[in-house]
Amino acid sequence: MDAASRPQELTSPAGKRAKVPAPRSRSIDVRLARRLLMALGNAPLEFVLGWSGERVCGPGSPMAQIRFADRATLWSVAADPRVSFGDAYSEGRVQIEGDLLYLLEIIYRTSAAGGTGGTFSRLLQGLRYRPRRNTLSGSRQNIHSHYDIGNEFYSLWLGETMAYTCAYYPTAETSLDEAQVAKMDHVCRKLRLQAGETVVEAGCGWGSFALHMASRYGARVRAFNISREQIAFARRRAKEQGLEGQVEFIEDDYRNITGRYDVFASIGMLEHVGKENYPELGRVARRALAPEGRGLIHSIGRNYPAPLQPWIERRIFPGAYPPSLGEMMQIFEPADLSVLDVENIRLHYALTLREWLTRYEAAVDKVRAMFDELFVRMWRLYLAGSVAAFESGTLQLFQVLFTTPQNNRIPLTREYIYPR
Amino acid sequence: MDAASRPQELTSPAGKRAKVPAPRSRSIDVRLARRLLMALGNAPLEFVLGWSGERVCGPGSPMAQIRFADRATLWSVAADPRVSFGDAYSEGRVQIEGDLLYLLEIIYRTSAAGGTGGTFSRLLQGLRYRPRRNTLSGSRQNIHSHYDIGNEFYSLWLGETMAYTCAYYPTAETSLDEAQVAKMDHVCRKLRLQAGETVVEAGCGWGSFALHMASRYGARVRAFNISREQIAFARRRAKEQGLEGQVEFIEDDYRNITGRYDVFASIGMLEHVGKENYPELGRVARRALAPEGRGLIHSIGRNYPAPLQPWIERRIFPGAYPPSLGEMMQIFEPADLSVLDVENIRLHYALTLREWLTRYEAAVDKVRAMFDELFVRMWRLYLAGSVAAFESGTLQLFQVLFTTPQNNRIPLTREYIYPR
Repeated sequence: MDAASRPQELTSPAGKRAKVPAPRSRSIDVRLARRLLMALGNAPLEFVLGWSGERVCGPGSPMAQIRFADRATLWSVAADPRVSFGDAYSEGRVQIEGDLLYLLEIIYRTSAAGGTGGTFSRLLQGLRYRPRRNTLSGSRQNIHSHYDIGNEFYSLWLGETMAYTCAYYPTAETSLDEAQVAKMDHVCRKLRLQAGETVVEAGCGWGSFALHMASRYGARVRAFNISREQIAFARRRAKEQGLEGQVEFIEDDYRNITGRYDVFASIGMLEHVGKENYPELGRVARRALAPEGRGLIHSIGRNYPAPLQPWIERRIFPGAYPPSLGEMMQIFEPADLSVLDVENIRLHYALTLREWLTRYEAAVDKVRAMFDELFVRMWRLYLAGSVAAFESGTLQLFQVLFTTPQNNRIPLTREYIYPR
Repeated sequence: MDAASRPQELTSPAGKRAKVPAPRSRSIDVRLARRLLMALGNAPLEFVLGWSGERVCGPGSPMAQIRFADRATLWSVAADPRVSFGDAYSEGRVQIEGDLLYLLEIIYRTSAAGGTGGTFSRLLQGLRYRPRRNTLSGSRQNIHSHYDIGNEFYSLWLGETMAYTCAYYPTAETSLDEAQVAKMDHVCRKLRLQAGETVVEAGCGWGSFALHMASRYGARVRAFNISREQIAFARRRAKEQGLEGQVEFIEDDYRNITGRYDVFASIGMLEHVGKENYPELGRVARRALAPEGRGLIHSIGRNYPAPLQPWIERRIFPGAYPPSLGEMMQIFEPADLSVLDVENIRLHYALTLREWLTRYEAAVDKVRAMFDELFVRMWRLYLAGSVAAFESGTLQLFQVLFTTPQNNRIPLTREYIYPR
């Protein structure tokens, strides 16, 4: 990974480094480490201070060991844990042995519970970093920095479908690839997609859903995406599958969608839209829908309005924001779109991310060869942290089905989604 | 119906009567009637001016005839249609022959479509009448005026269950009584109610759901309601069914709920809560739920924030307000409750109301004997208008399922709601 393609400078800004008191007494550091442990609910963890060999332990045998390489790291994590912890881990100044997922879940759970007011409880809250704005050009840059780092990299761990969104597990034993296909079918069933119907897709990733709707349902699809690499990949796929006549991949912003369609679909784009643009997205969807049209928006969300974890927003997903359901309604309500069905499938994203993480670790040598150790650790933390966020209930996954306000061609019950 | 038990004075306030120009020319009235017809999309309707015998007709054979008894009525309806139309109909100054439901749907649909900016398009919009506030004592008075007008009256048309909320129709052919039971089972399945679990119900009506949960699911239920007549009725029922040991009916406000329960349920109370009280309702629900507790709120709603039709709010449901989904989120989000599932079943309420209206008309002589012709027409308009509101998409019916934020005992899919 060369510097130019890196999402953002990783070295912590100098001004953010904490001032470290002179080591008059070894116990200052130990006391600080103990405060961190208490903020994590005195969980079975072990902190190791690399420069002195001192240890601070929770009760029982530790599930994970957290080793701080130097005093500056300990103090910077204590001073600004939300960003410093991620950076220190990525740069190897914090080493974790044992169960990284367990540690991250502890952090999320104590943080979500309001914690003890301690330092770590601020790890995932607080500071209203202003996400980078998603103007037409801002969106292009934000999306480029995440999705254009290389199709080859993503193909190492996303599975056959290359779907980079929450899958749907009919059972916990379903495989990743099966669950991605099940997700596409779940969405198509909700939308009651019929052969010959037209679909516009806003944010199509590598094109798997557009191609699925065309090949399995006989739909005619126009799919929008501003990621050049993804669009190129999707077009190659369409050609290989002989679907060029049925699916048109358009490298353009969802705001430039024109025409009328039976179905509007958007899976995993809303996170990048920016809440200031929700009413416009609603206008676009309303304008795009035929009189009896149906739409579905699938997005990461939250139980209440809160910013994305700042390290993730800075280092991984610039400009991203997971909305609460109330915030999402700013898409539908001003446009007089009628919400028919909302499903929260957050535990499915935990399952999806666990499989991505497993595949990522299996391919970690290839990742290291493509980029460097810093990148490897950064993405490990991001994937593991995301598992923890969905398992702890910090993040949600909403699928919102909607239609035009006077459409009465609606099945009475939702049994049609669950065929026998 | 004696004056004391009437929801509110019915005679239009004098100041609201429109000034009627001197009849220099017969065509002034005709022109006004034609403007009303145009505002209704030039639908196949016939207006008859009773004092002159003049007629204004839409194209084709009329689906309904609207006869204005006198010029004052025509002009007052034109000047303030939202309230005057309902009053004039109730008092018999407007007579409708033909399909009342068709007429009301036309009014809702042209109104919802934004209309031509004409007078009738304001019939169901506009003027922000301030609903009467739902303080602890205000709620008691608001609820008393609607629900305590007589159990005998409601038993004429609500069916065996006496459930005065939207039923659930597995098919359009299901009977009213079956659909009310199906609704209760639908809610219990969503809540995964198990034998021996505890439930608190906020707003229990005549008690049918509380008794259903106890008798069919083996739950232990505490059910709250501030309507004295309903509580007395529900207690008699519990006694008759030998369920006094399992169901406790409490004449008190939902805000006074204490204790912890496996399930929190509220069917058709939210309309009377007042949106200023939503965060408090959320706190009550959160406080009432055990760590793995589930809750469901079932309420009339809207696609976007708007006041209740003002005639309904004034004459039928003082203090009522149907929220948008975004507004409903003010219950859940400040309390960090996690929304799992939202279902919009508005067409079920149209079916329910059609059956209520049919039964009401079948018993109309008894209603007239209990009250008077004014009451008969008022309630006919309310029931028929409600059918039209749900069929036209003006009103929605939301069921929102929620749980505590860290509850991971959630089925992966919603198939459990649809048993085979």
